[in-house]
Amino acid sequence: MGGFVNRHIVTANGFDEKNIPWFGNKFLTGNGYFGVRGTMEEYRKEQMCAINMAGIYDRVGDKWREPVNAPNPFYSVLYVDGVLLALPETAPKSHRQELDFYSALQMRETVWETEKGTVTLSCQRFSSMADQHLLAMRYVVTADYDCEIAVTTGIDGDVWDINGPHFASLKTGYEDGIRYVTGITGERGVTVTVKSRLLCDTPGTVTTDQYTALETVTRQVTANTPFILDTVAELTTSVDVFPPKAELSTLTYDAVKAEHVAKWKNIWDISEVSIDGDEEAEFSLNYSLYHLNCVAPRNLDGVSIGARGLSGQVYKGAVFWDTEMFMLDYYIDTDPKAAKDLLKYRIDTIGGAREKAKEYGLNGAYYAWESQDGGYEGCSDYNVVDVFTKRPMRTYFRDKQYHVSAAIVYGFMKYLKGTGDYSIIDEGGLSVILECAQMYRSLLLKKADSDWYEIHDVVGPDEYHERVNNNAYTNRMAKFVFETALSMIAYAKEKGLKTDYDLDSIAAMCKESAEHMYVPQMNENGLIEQFDGYFGLEDASVEEVRSRLLDPKEYWGGAYGVAADTQVLKQADVVALLSMFREEYSVDVMRKNWEYYEPRTEHGSSLSACMYSLLSCYIGNPDDAYPLFMKSANADLLPAGKEWIGLIYIGGTHPAAQGGAWIVMVKGFAGISAKDGKLTAEPKLPKGWKELRFKMMYQGKLYQIIARQDGAEIKEIEQQG
Amino acid sequence: MGGFVNRHIVTANGFDEKNIPWFGNKFLTGNGYFGVRGTMEEYRKEQMCAINMAGIYDRVGDKWREPVNAPNPFYSVLYVDGVLLALPETAPKSHRQELDFYSALQMRETVWETEKGTVTLSCQRFSSMADQHLLAMRYVVTADYDCEIAVTTGIDGDVWDINGPHFASLKTGYEDGIRYVTGITGERGVTVTVKSRLLCDTPGTVTTDQYTALETVTRQVTANTPFILDTVAELTTSVDVFPPKAELSTLTYDAVKAEHVAKWKNIWDISEVSIDGDEEAEFSLNYSLYHLNCVAPRNLDGVSIGARGLSGQVYKGAVFWDTEMFMLDYYIDTDPKAAKDLLKYRIDTIGGAREKAKEYGLNGAYYAWESQDGGYEGCSDYNVVDVFTKRPMRTYFRDKQYHVSAAIVYGFMKYLKGTGDYSIIDEGGLSVILECAQMYRSLLLKKADSDWYEIHDVVGPDEYHERVNNNAYTNRMAKFVFETALSMIAYAKEKGLKTDYDLDSIAAMCKESAEHMYVPQMNENGLIEQFDGYFGLEDASVEEVRSRLLDPKEYWGGAYGVAADTQVLKQADVVALLSMFREEYSVDVMRKNWEYYEPRTEHGSSLSACMYSLLSCYIGNPDDAYPLFMKSANADLLPAGKEWIGLIYIGGTHPAAQGGAWIVMVKGFAGISAKDGKLTAEPKLPKGWKELRFKMMYQGKLYQIIARQDGAEIKEIEQQG
Repeated sequence: MGGFVNRHIVTANGFDEKNIPWFGNKFLTGNGYFGVRGTMEEYRKEQMCAINMAGIYDRVGDKWREPVNAPNPFYSVLYVDGVLLALPETAPKSHRQELDFYSALQMRETVWETEKGTVTLSCQRFSSMADQHLLAMRYVVTADYDCEIAVTTGIDGDVWDINGPHFASLKTGYEDGIRYVTGITGERGVTVTVKSRLLCDTPGTVTTDQYTALETVTRQVTANTPFILDTVAELTTSVDVFPPKAELSTLTYDAVKAEHVAKWKNIWDISEVSIDGDEEAEFSLNYSLYHLNCVAPRNLDGVSIGARGLSGQVYKGAVFWDTEMFMLDYYIDTDPKAAKDLLKYRIDTIGGAREKAKEYGLNGAYYAWESQDGGYEGCSDYNVVDVFTKRPMRTYFRDKQYHVSAAIVYGFMKYLKGTGDYSIIDEGGLSVILECAQMYRSLLLKKADSDWYEIHDVVGPDEYHERVNNNAYTNRMAKFVFETALSMIAYAKEKGLKTDYDLDSIAAMCKESAEHMYVPQMNENGLIEQFDGYFGLEDASVEEVRSRLLDPKEYWGGAYGVAADTQVLKQADVVALLSMFREEYSVDVMRKNWEYYEPRTEHGSSLSACMYSLLSCYIGNPDDAYPLFMKSANADLLPAGKEWIGLIYIGGTHPAAQGGAWIVMVKGFAGISAKDGKLTAEPKLPKGWKELRFKMMYQGKLYQIIARQDGAEIKEIEQQG
Repeated sequence: MGGFVNRHIVTANGFDEKNIPWFGNKFLTGNGYFGVRGTMEEYRKEQMCAINMAGIYDRVGDKWREPVNAPNPFYSVLYVDGVLLALPETAPKSHRQELDFYSALQMRETVWETEKGTVTLSCQRFSSMADQHLLAMRYVVTADYDCEIAVTTGIDGDVWDINGPHFASLKTGYEDGIRYVTGITGERGVTVTVKSRLLCDTPGTVTTDQYTALETVTRQVTANTPFILDTVAELTTSVDVFPPKAELSTLTYDAVKAEHVAKWKNIWDISEVSIDGDEEAEFSLNYSLYHLNCVAPRNLDGVSIGARGLSGQVYKGAVFWDTEMFMLDYYIDTDPKAAKDLLKYRIDTIGGAREKAKEYGLNGAYYAWESQDGGYEGCSDYNVVDVFTKRPMRTYFRDKQYHVSAAIVYGFMKYLKGTGDYSIIDEGGLSVILECAQMYRSLLLKKADSDWYEIHDVVGPDEYHERVNNNAYTNRMAKFVFETALSMIAYAKEKGLKTDYDLDSIAAMCKESAEHMYVPQMNENGLIEQFDGYFGLEDASVEEVRSRLLDPKEYWGGAYGVAADTQVLKQADVVALLSMFREEYSVDVMRKNWEYYEPRTEHGSSLSACMYSLLSCYIGNPDDAYPLFMKSANADLLPAGKEWIGLIYIGGTHPAAQGGAWIVMVKGFAGISAKDGKLTAEPKLPKGWKELRFKMMYQGKLYQIIARQDGAEIKEIEQQG
């Protein structure tokens, strides 16, 4: 583990306790099956140490359902001559934390000064991409003097929970050289087992208690002789689809690592991006792609990606529109099977969406704002806590963000366009699309003397304005769903798909709905009003609105938030509409709206900047796009943005921002679009970018893209078997 | 002024400073042109002393527009041997305040103990009902020892304002024995002049300053010799319709008083109610009628009655639906001309209602929630102040309480039924009704696959639940408006009224609207849901909800108020609907709904109890009706109810509750209804009521009603003149 800085290593030098939550995200490792927060080996739940499981949810009492954190097999504490050396308690002489995101290895090196000399603790660990059940650690202690080193290491089942505890029972033990901690969740009785094997040439003493299975190894070492302890661990559950590939007892650190690194190399062979002339952007973008690769649920059934990836229980581990809107493109472009798996999640969970529709008196499928296993809604009616009264606040994320269903349909269409693979429609996608159309149909309202359908009482992408009428984005997306359903019905008929739907009647409904759908158009200034009455709201600046906060954690939205009665918005709303339907608007209209809405946008969501960045490219302004692109790509590299909504903690990784950065790079800077089954590129590179190179899949073929300030090349690459 | 208690005298013995605001309301005198708060002569603005003007509004800066308080000609301070004797500063030996509401005289008697003996101050004063410009006072000081008495008395122009100051300029002076203070309002330059003449056998010294015109009279008196100072004052404005009847210089206290008392006797000859067997109810009800008589704007144009009568600037002196819903009946029954004047106010102010409709993109006339002069909306979008943040809260009283327009139409229909006088329709009533129907038409929404019109996003009478859909009351009232418009069009055609309206097309619109109007019906339990989703709200008790308050002044409604997500309601809503459309519902349904909603009602509005009381009579349960009736009749007699909404003061008199008590007595206890132009009575008297006697007008004739437990008599009375 060198201290060198290269194209793939994120380094943080020095120790500052207040960075613990952020670094847990920044240095995360993961393999889609779980995520391991970038914490130190000696950390416990107080330091937000967590191994966050994909798709395993549990609910305690009437608290929020959230994904389960597994017991931690990396827990290790160091004593030298009987003295504890541990962060954050023992101040280090020096400390460095690193993530090699090319090989997906997390490293730390901490040096403590003792009375007799210095002690260095170096660890390397990873979450195996080759076998999703495995995780491994090499723990190395070196002192520059003769001393007694004792390490207590093993599995810590006393996990960090936000709304736990989730293990109704825990069993700990040791058998045949393997320590284990098994937890059984309270709600559904899912078993989560962590086993680990310590590979060390010194025998240890095993102790177990209610939560832990630990082994203490003590050795007299001579100066400058490394004391190495390897751990290989296996994480399984009672609902696994695929078992581990090998017996834990047969595995060594180096062997597991070699396969892991090789697997990542394969991934990077397709997804790595090169930007000649801008090392910083290249670094941030590849780092973003690293995170997207860490969270893709490649070998799981009925699982998608949560808004905070696998970085913890924030946002209940739930799947939002983020996945289809911002992350999906990356997988379509680099790993279509992963993309299809994400969409399969929506097919598999249509039952939850149907139930939600029924709950609100709607037809069809109304996908959850916060979708958990089975597609059931994880969002409560009270999703924010008021800072002044400490009372839960009634929010409308759950009931009125109708646009989530449209985003899913939009995701399907992106997949079809990008892959040409219509099997997803045959395998259930048709139901998703038709039932979303039915849901939107039940939202349509006509005024007594009007011929137009309106949609009232919604929350658009800009959540700071609740319960608005005719949100331009939502209305256009509803129309899009009707149009999509029409074309999918045509496909189904042509293909002779068997279905229980009355396709003709649904087609008639969709046609009538689409034709009469009211979509707010630009006014005399070329501006599209975000919703009825938006332009009549107070036109205060973002800074002015911010200055009205009485408490920094105060929620800006809700009925009485500082932004609610002003034109200040949380995130792209009209701008998202324009980015997504660019072919319907002139560059002039796009520019005018960008210029109007951008200064009024707080960018309070990590989804916002990339949308503005993309539209800025579309209007021929990559230099304005650039800082917003970098903001997206740096969402987890730079100090955390908003970490609180009211009194609810919302920190974690930001895969949607990272996916957004990919989209901006591909569609914006490289200017990739598809016409008649053929990719074209009209690059709009930021200043200083000499050459942008990346690969992408399109309709089953892999292409090498090279974009320069003055043009682009697109070459098909021969794929191996 | 005796200390006896009789059928018409309200007495308060003893002095307690904290009662000053309430007693200002309880002992109010007034004549429709102004109201004089029941404060002491030595009080100033700090004690909420005010002479509140009907229909004269002023606005300062961006503060709320409110009615103007006139300079106070009763201001008087007493010195005995140079020592100040005044409330609240000088603790009295004894103190009594009285209101003879039969003769409408306010009295006070305060006894102070000095070093030499006792001094008694007795005052009597009134607001002339015979000439609305006059007010007069007799101020009598008696000591039981020889002493020097000095009284400084005159006009105090430094008036109490909530959102003032309203006089941009004030002029004070003294001329030909008459003191005066003239104020000119800032917004519209209305002149308000108070002149007063001191009648006293001792000459005084006049002093004037910026605000006051005072006269100090000093006299050596011998023990037990009363020192009498009479004041007769005249209040006029630059927008008066009728001038004073006589020269101020010719008037004496006794002469003005004699005419005043005679006028009140005439009023009581028609309106007094006798209840044999229940002196307390008789007293409270007649006291309520006193207040209704004090506030009727009998000789004014374009003026109606504010929600707090003439007791101050609370609720901006604005006219609410209270007038048509709760007060109008009393005037229809006892003084149809006054009733017609109230309705004329709505005709005269249709311009304001049209502007409001336009502001919200609606057709026709949308009457103001808080109607001021010209019908302009006095209600702001921020009508409550949050107790926690001190920020104004966005409320929806102004924009979404659509039911006010229907209440006005309902008022017109009550007038037509009660008086048979259709001239009000010819004189502009038709416009009011047709344009209200047009307004409701623009609210109608049809779901894409429904045949029914719904009304969404409203605030019903129960203001604690904002922005609800299909409020049963509002929807039924909308239908009522369409039906009424239809019948009025039929009348207009039959009568050949000239009009600019396209009556046929409006009739077609109203017919189609009424036929397709969705009105929530009872469910399998016979219950009508107050609005979509109401039954799904938390079913917490009123006490439970109250216990959740963190601050006693906290607003129960709004987005996050303690009642908002529960079934607890502020006031009658479904119960109002049932009371008003009783012919459409069985007694069983009325009973079930009463029993469901009553325990869930906070009765946070003084409009609530009477509605519940009335329905209780309709379901044959006068004994349950009785305490609610008494609550209404005692609204100002008993200690004040809710005096704060958030940080906004809402104290004052409650003419709607008082009118409600009349309605309960007539329609509920006496069981009066009209069929085929004939009154009938089916009494349902509370326990202990032996005989209930009152008079009422019906279709131009005056009737004596005598109701007993076992039946009733209705006799026409020959009217004089």
